[in-house]
Amino acid sequence: MFKHNEQQPEGFQASLKEALDNLAFNDAGLVAAIAQQHDSGEVLMMAWMNREAIEETLATGRVCYFSRSRRKLWRKGESSGQVQMLKELRIDCDGDALLVKVDQTGPACHTGRRDCFYWKADASNVTIDKAPIKDPKELYGK
Amino acid sequence: MFKHNEQQPEGFQASLKEALDNLAFNDAGLVAAIAQQHDSGEVLMMAWMNREAIEETLATGRVCYFSRSRRKLWRKGESSGQVQMLKELRIDCDGDALLVKVDQTGPACHTGRRDCFYWKADASNVTIDKAPIKDPKELYGK
Repeated sequence: MFKHNEQQPEGFQASLKEALDNLAFNDAGLVAAIAQQHDSGEVLMMAWMNREAIEETLATGRVCYFSRSRRKLWRKGESSGQVQMLKELRIDCDGDALLVKVDQTGPACHTGRRDCFYWKADASNVTIDKAPIKDPKELYGK
Repeated sequence: MFKHNEQQPEGFQASLKEALDNLAFNDAGLVAAIAQQHDSGEVLMMAWMNREAIEETLATGRVCYFSRSRRKLWRKGESSGQVQMLKELRIDCDGDALLVKVDQTGPACHTGRRDCFYWKADASNVTIDKAPIKDPKELYGK
């Protein structure tokens, strides 16, 4: 469906069901989901969604991923309190990646940093260049 | 290495080699790479890199991915002319995703649209809401 309709004009519409039936889920039934803060444009994190997580996110307006380590739905913030409210969910041209525009409360990263991309690489080294905005012990100590 | 050093302060450094040795490449030897326009913050596309693509990108300053369909290095723009120059490459907290800040010439998407995320989803439908900024025939007809 995605390839077939890629030359359609703005305004072209299909049902969510048809889109989900045609997403390019990997062997584990997942697609990559990029979370971006809707107003500042910061890329916060990358995680994974299965079909159920996408449907729940769109139905509830609160972002739900699929945790590969825990093998279950992961309502972002359920243990840390740092939830993501959905502003916009987008699918890419070949149906194998999602862009989720969110309103993130506090840090998106389990380390207490605002975002997960705190290692900056150059041709010789990688360097941590971001500090936590909340103590991770506070996030998970509850 | 990523988990082990996640509580290190700003300025903590390791070698690029150690970081690449510890990236969480998937079974195909790839990590996800999110391309973001460095100044506007637009998320342009998601693609994949193997170790060689990361090393080449950092060494040359021109973004190189690994094409899963063609099974080879893919110097973005090599057929379309729409190159990505590297501004910054970042690694996430668990070493399985990259954020590549780029300066994108023209459209990032093979459809001629500026970015690949042109399907907007809601609880019932998906809708194309972006138009090409260049005719794709022009991009690949050369």
